[in-house]
Amino acid sequence: MTRYCLTIEYDGSNFVGWQRQTSGPSVQESLESAIEAFTGEPSTTIAAGRTDAGVHASGQVVHADIARVAEPRMVLLALNHHLKPLPIVVRNAWPVGPNFHARFSAKRRHYRYRILNRSAPAALERGRVWWVPEPLDLEAMRQAAVCLIGHHDFTSFRAAGCQANSPLRTLDRLAVTAQGEEIYLDLAAQSFLHNQVRIVTGSLKWIGNGRWPPERMHEILEARDRTQAGPTAPPHGLCLTAVDYNDS
Amino acid sequence: MTRYCLTIEYDGSNFVGWQRQTSGPSVQESLESAIEAFTGEPSTTIAAGRTDAGVHASGQVVHADIARVAEPRMVLLALNHHLKPLPIVVRNAWPVGPNFHARFSAKRRHYRYRILNRSAPAALERGRVWWVPEPLDLEAMRQAAVCLIGHHDFTSFRAAGCQANSPLRTLDRLAVTAQGEEIYLDLAAQSFLHNQVRIVTGSLKWIGNGRWPPERMHEILEARDRTQAGPTAPPHGLCLTAVDYNDS
Repeated sequence: MTRYCLTIEYDGSNFVGWQRQTSGPSVQESLESAIEAFTGEPSTTIAAGRTDAGVHASGQVVHADIARVAEPRMVLLALNHHLKPLPIVVRNAWPVGPNFHARFSAKRRHYRYRILNRSAPAALERGRVWWVPEPLDLEAMRQAAVCLIGHHDFTSFRAAGCQANSPLRTLDRLAVTAQGEEIYLDLAAQSFLHNQVRIVTGSLKWIGNGRWPPERMHEILEARDRTQAGPTAPPHGLCLTAVDYNDS
Repeated sequence: MTRYCLTIEYDGSNFVGWQRQTSGPSVQESLESAIEAFTGEPSTTIAAGRTDAGVHASGQVVHADIARVAEPRMVLLALNHHLKPLPIVVRNAWPVGPNFHARFSAKRRHYRYRILNRSAPAALERGRVWWVPEPLDLEAMRQAAVCLIGHHDFTSFRAAGCQANSPLRTLDRLAVTAQGEEIYLDLAAQSFLHNQVRIVTGSLKWIGNGRWPPERMHEILEARDRTQAGPTAPPHGLCLTAVDYNDS
């Protein structure tokens, strides 16, 4: 039995999310089936980020105990073979010590939210971006974003069903950048509350389109009240891009 | 009747190509149906590049005579409304003079070919990139590319069914760049032969993976013989990104 760390990429559109559920196909179930097809043994996988239905990942990190001796390169090829034709791939696979835990050892999670800001809907990037046709004021969004960086009580940016013990989180990064017709929101923190990135995004959109002034963001944060924040942005604009560990 | 210039974006995966055909749905037919739904009159559209089945466009340019008086912004909104839910969108729409011709007035066409060069197949970019798992030598590809730039007889890089009168073309640009795990081939010319970009790409791949030395590209060009070049790369990695006109 060797513990492996796997970096995986998936198109979350047609999954109920990372986590195994009875309501439909999950990424976790698909990956565990591929591991079982390779090793002949059932396997339980643990992911750094339990992405919601429709959320994508380019750099999700997972650990799994693999009950078959093989070169790491063979593990990668075999799992990708068994994952076909699903839109889930293993980008990297390497053996780690038995104490490595994809979720608890993670030092920082990186998410990118993509907004397509133009009159025309998305054709090529459909399902990967949130289409916002009204003009967004990037400077106002940047101004508003600053107050969220640091250690705060993020109760206002937390889904009703969030199961975290504490609403306190440290947001290390919240960058607002433009790339052609797209706006990227890049966030990093050791951990996030449920829907935190999407509620921050929905609030920044209402500031960007002028519905609220930039100063409103600080009031929302202080209010510690979910009803004061903006809407939860749709899942398909969100992607878990990377997870940092001590030695990476 | 006002002549419009339209910039359009489409996911070519499920179309028989730009051009109207009896064998299946085309982008042209879909766009003409949307125009007819808006104006009540049949319309014929002309595109700068007749992209093949599976080839995408982010900046295809089309002209059409629109038999309804409306603000350009309304034309854009109405056409996008009638195009739903197809993965075709009008990015820009503006009136032009009656002598504007999307195909014959075009000064330069720009194509990008995307190669995903890593062990793992594509999940998020599936259908947008050509997955090449074996390592590609970027420097060798760049060296080989240089000899194609300029005015040449491109018979070796021309599909058997190509209907152009002359195999002479002037390739203005052929840049080979890396962006993370992707390799971009960016080509520009006033016009291209049928499959020219994809045969150039297939040949560069065989140079990149070491099957052929870089010098081979010059021999292929000189041979004026399609059988001397590499395979035709698959359509889904190719995208028509822009078309230049005199005043643009």
